[in-house]
Amino acid sequence: MNHERRYLYYKQLIDRRLKQFVRQQKPRSLYGPLTYILEGGGKRIRPLVLLLSCEAVGGTVRHALHAGVAIEILHNFTLVHDDIMDHAASRRGRPTVHTKWDANVAILVGDELLALAYRALLKTRSHNIQEIAKVFTEGVVEVCEGQAYDKEFETRRAVRVDEYLLMIEKKTAKMVAVAAEIGALIGNGTAASIHALRRYGKHVGRAFQIQDDLLDIVANETEFGKAVGGDLVEGKKTFLLLEALHHAEGKEKRMLQAMVRNKGVPRRLVPEYRRIYYHTGAIDAARRWIERDIAQAKKELRRLPSSDAKVMLVWLTDMLLHRTF
Amino acid sequence: MNHERRYLYYKQLIDRRLKQFVRQQKPRSLYGPLTYILEGGGKRIRPLVLLLSCEAVGGTVRHALHAGVAIEILHNFTLVHDDIMDHAASRRGRPTVHTKWDANVAILVGDELLALAYRALLKTRSHNIQEIAKVFTEGVVEVCEGQAYDKEFETRRAVRVDEYLLMIEKKTAKMVAVAAEIGALIGNGTAASIHALRRYGKHVGRAFQIQDDLLDIVANETEFGKAVGGDLVEGKKTFLLLEALHHAEGKEKRMLQAMVRNKGVPRRLVPEYRRIYYHTGAIDAARRWIERDIAQAKKELRRLPSSDAKVMLVWLTDMLLHRTF
Repeated sequence: MNHERRYLYYKQLIDRRLKQFVRQQKPRSLYGPLTYILEGGGKRIRPLVLLLSCEAVGGTVRHALHAGVAIEILHNFTLVHDDIMDHAASRRGRPTVHTKWDANVAILVGDELLALAYRALLKTRSHNIQEIAKVFTEGVVEVCEGQAYDKEFETRRAVRVDEYLLMIEKKTAKMVAVAAEIGALIGNGTAASIHALRRYGKHVGRAFQIQDDLLDIVANETEFGKAVGGDLVEGKKTFLLLEALHHAEGKEKRMLQAMVRNKGVPRRLVPEYRRIYYHTGAIDAARRWIERDIAQAKKELRRLPSSDAKVMLVWLTDMLLHRTF
Repeated sequence: MNHERRYLYYKQLIDRRLKQFVRQQKPRSLYGPLTYILEGGGKRIRPLVLLLSCEAVGGTVRHALHAGVAIEILHNFTLVHDDIMDHAASRRGRPTVHTKWDANVAILVGDELLALAYRALLKTRSHNIQEIAKVFTEGVVEVCEGQAYDKEFETRRAVRVDEYLLMIEKKTAKMVAVAAEIGALIGNGTAASIHALRRYGKHVGRAFQIQDDLLDIVANETEFGKAVGGDLVEGKKTFLLLEALHHAEGKEKRMLQAMVRNKGVPRRLVPEYRRIYYHTGAIDAARRWIERDIAQAKKELRRLPSSDAKVMLVWLTDMLLHRTF
């Protein structure tokens, strides 16, 4: 099986389990929107990392499926609640839950998703179950902290790059690290391999998020699927903005500060701001961070014995790096 | 030690642990409001049931403290999110989180509380930990389902009494049942005693909620601490309203239907509606349900061996029944 087909095979395993998992129908006001969000698609990256991490330490994928479903449900919980807080109207090309229904429904659906994530996780048979549940829980705590920082940064004038990196570590990277660690725990990996996989997940997760910021500026619009420069228009405090602000001088600095003050720029100014991002070295800095994280992630993988799963993890890492989606 | 003093002793144990448990300070936007809500007081009934259930099957209170803290944090999670959904401005005499801060903060604080509840629970040392976490999780699922029904009922014209009872079983009674069951699991109770305590919790929880509806109509205003008839003014679909609607005829029926249609009545009409509740037998029906549940709860306790903790559980049951708070 080639890599792509193997990825689709694992994805299907997860999608099928996910569908079986939510069979409940009543109360309709809860399970209707809940099914809507879970069937809305997604790349299922986190469960894939979990399953492959389990295999990479010598475990069986079948034993990790419940946890894979759990980490995907947990991810969807964060999406539903974040979308309320961010007033996001659409997600994966469809209306968000709070738009299609209302904020109350979305709050409750998110809460229920979190509970269902634990229900799925606790189906796992493992003598490590207490540790697994603890790792999962620390992931939830950090995701909340990350989101809190993210919202704090929106209204703060000045945010340092290292604060931004802490935020995405908590909000994005931690969950990938948790997926990898739980997979390794279910597979009964050694302490060293568990540690390596956790760090692998953290680096991949962080690279993924910085890449997301970068793609908003440098992506090919047709392949990326959304208009380039959206973060600029919304005035989002991305890695690029904070890095550019740190290095800019004179007129460029004033333009960036104006963007922060005005909470975004008109779309026609996007090319000009792109130029500033290139000129201040922000684009290069982002690329360097991504490359460093990817290199670190692969270095962690080298600590593991050879296996198909390990090859797949390397492939996944490269796929995420070269994605245009 | 008399009962009241023993109750206060246990309450203090929980309050102290709760305070120690949340030491984290940053991000401030998250942990500020979180500490505010946890220090807002409360009767700590659920942890008390948990601790006493552990003792009643021969376990040690000390082993159940983490779980006691967990169930109290979980309760506070439901309060914070329910208050957003209900647009409640105050709670325990203070502004609610979404009023003092905003809805986004309250959503996130609730999420974090749920995560912290699991963190506390998973500190428990027990070979039953997986079962304990499962019971806890099913509690969260049912609380969400109960809240979904509650919100559904608000906009539905007709709700049957049995639907209402299912709703409060999920929204209120289940959590007391979970507290009792987890206490018994930590105390390594027999299957029979675990079962008895779970049922005890369910009956007490249901009686407590119907009592809450009843107190709104029959309580002594000074002792109750809030104006009598608030549920009537808000047009809440309480046990009394649904029971009265079921039995009323003629003019009384039309008056009740008008109240549902208009989502409440002017305060000056409260005495008239009280009369309808008495006249249709709704007050009596509520009293009968409460007495039956309390009798059932005590019957379940008789299945347990004699102990101080059992005596305390009986005392607690009576206290909740005769409460005017």
